[in-house]
Amino acid sequence: MKIIVDAFGGDNAPLEVIRGAAEAIEAYDVDILLTGKEAIIRQTAAEHAVSLDRMEILDCDDVITMDDHPRSILKEHKNSSMAVGLQALAAGQGDAFVSAGSTGALLMGSTFLVKRISGVSRPAIAAVIPSTKGPVMLIDSGANADCRADMLLRFGQMGSLYMTDVMGGGKEATVGLLNVGTEETKGGPLQQEAYALLKQSNLQFVGNVEARDVPFGVADVIVADGFSGNVLLKTMEGTADMIVQNLKTMFYTSLKTKIGALLVKKELDAFKKSMSTAEYGGAPLLGVRKPVIKTHGNAKALAIKNAIRVAAEFAKAGVIDKIKATVQAEGAEEA
Amino acid sequence: MKIIVDAFGGDNAPLEVIRGAAEAIEAYDVDILLTGKEAIIRQTAAEHAVSLDRMEILDCDDVITMDDHPRSILKEHKNSSMAVGLQALAAGQGDAFVSAGSTGALLMGSTFLVKRISGVSRPAIAAVIPSTKGPVMLIDSGANADCRADMLLRFGQMGSLYMTDVMGGGKEATVGLLNVGTEETKGGPLQQEAYALLKQSNLQFVGNVEARDVPFGVADVIVADGFSGNVLLKTMEGTADMIVQNLKTMFYTSLKTKIGALLVKKELDAFKKSMSTAEYGGAPLLGVRKPVIKTHGNAKALAIKNAIRVAAEFAKAGVIDKIKATVQAEGAEEA
Repeated sequence: MKIIVDAFGGDNAPLEVIRGAAEAIEAYDVDILLTGKEAIIRQTAAEHAVSLDRMEILDCDDVITMDDHPRSILKEHKNSSMAVGLQALAAGQGDAFVSAGSTGALLMGSTFLVKRISGVSRPAIAAVIPSTKGPVMLIDSGANADCRADMLLRFGQMGSLYMTDVMGGGKEATVGLLNVGTEETKGGPLQQEAYALLKQSNLQFVGNVEARDVPFGVADVIVADGFSGNVLLKTMEGTADMIVQNLKTMFYTSLKTKIGALLVKKELDAFKKSMSTAEYGGAPLLGVRKPVIKTHGNAKALAIKNAIRVAAEFAKAGVIDKIKATVQAEGAEEA
Repeated sequence: MKIIVDAFGGDNAPLEVIRGAAEAIEAYDVDILLTGKEAIIRQTAAEHAVSLDRMEILDCDDVITMDDHPRSILKEHKNSSMAVGLQALAAGQGDAFVSAGSTGALLMGSTFLVKRISGVSRPAIAAVIPSTKGPVMLIDSGANADCRADMLLRFGQMGSLYMTDVMGGGKEATVGLLNVGTEETKGGPLQQEAYALLKQSNLQFVGNVEARDVPFGVADVIVADGFSGNVLLKTMEGTADMIVQNLKTMFYTSLKTKIGALLVKKELDAFKKSMSTAEYGGAPLLGVRKPVIKTHGNAKALAIKNAIRVAAEFAKAGVIDKIKATVQAEGAEEA
């Protein structure tokens, strides 16, 4: 298994990226193909004593940033570390691709360089979020601000295959539709049409779910348009951050509270870990022909390491072949 | 100041409602007009030794429930405690109305019984949510799943007037547009058009805001369509509930953690209080001709008491006259 990694994606590149890659090689027995400025990668590794064993480097001297237009990955920035990584993935030089760079550029590059699965009109970003019953997939979590109902059905199908095979150990995933109430008539035309399509499908559809119940694991896959999905994802992050910040303040109030904090330190650390998106490694981009994983822009070594693990699991599970088969079966039925 | 209160709205009616009303009379020197089944109100008050001093009762024998169609408040349930309360408000029998009943019915009833301010096409529910910088208004938080850009501008104007006068002590409120990124070009057509309108307005517009930053008080008023606003509101509630549940489990792990919990008890209680929506009392319904406050369906006495306080402040501040003046000035400008 060889994972291609964008060494210049995200706020902490390249040091944290190559650190995470080195840790992943140790932990998961994978090979790595880094993309980016080779001289800087080698210099950074040497300075920080990071081993480059089992890592190849595809040298390229450009980087696409958050400020660049996503479409520039196809032209002005076609020699960026992200573009070169996606081209290498398309050419079969590795089994999956991981980047912490611009989401828009990654989406654009994946769609046009790796290409969509035929029958999938729009790829989606499928964030994995914590819940009291374990990880939940939120699809779409930000790729498509405007969606049609048939896109939402496709998101449900792709998310279900991923969660069943990669994270559920084969147990069929349940699918819910994000809505403002549980009744069938809730929401706007988009939700009402999507509800009908999901109900007719052979997915394990549990109906509409309210955002309030998502953290309690009401379904394994939450289907949403990219706008409200993104709002859900970022509200969870922001609320958790605010609460953790308030708890810190609380524990530092006095000597008494500091002692209290010491007594619950182990449990508090475990709790913080359970809330941390770094543990999930990143979000698969579903609907393109090869496994692509987007990690957080502020990812550090741990998140990169976990993203590489998720990329390897994604590639191994054969989810993409199953998505292709599902879409083809539908096409055959309609014909 | 007389506040009309729906004694049969919500899951804990009538006991918690009349308890909250009695506490509000003590604390805020207001008079109360209850609507609902008089015999049951009197019996419940007697059984639980709740004083009905300074409370009048408008007897009516019907209740509208969550299962009833909102529109039924105008016909089949026009004698429900909610409908009778709204009629009393329209007739000037009180200064504001508070209900913990069905949001849809309250919206429908307010729109057609109390009536819209002319020039406001759709009233909005304006939830008040906690942030590290104090309360923030989220408008719309669930009344209108589908919105036009001009509606979003109006939400911003109404929210700004409310937050400036009722909660900001006259300091002009800042207004942000909920979006999936801060750049002007983010989101779909709705957000892009609304951005242009808000930018042209004379509001203190701070631009697009991401859901992640809302709990950190990035703006005093967050403008959103009712669908994504509702997702934000409920995600905050669900995430906070999940974390509090996890913290409880954490503190009960062992004798050591229980002692830890005791040492931070006071601070933990203060923290829980700061996160509790019951403290804010409820969400004003903005865009109708009289003050209407919606409290949570599971509101207990404390939330009802605070909702009555908020209703009194809303009525006293003269916000509705200012909304009328703003809309009229615009009409004059356009003419």
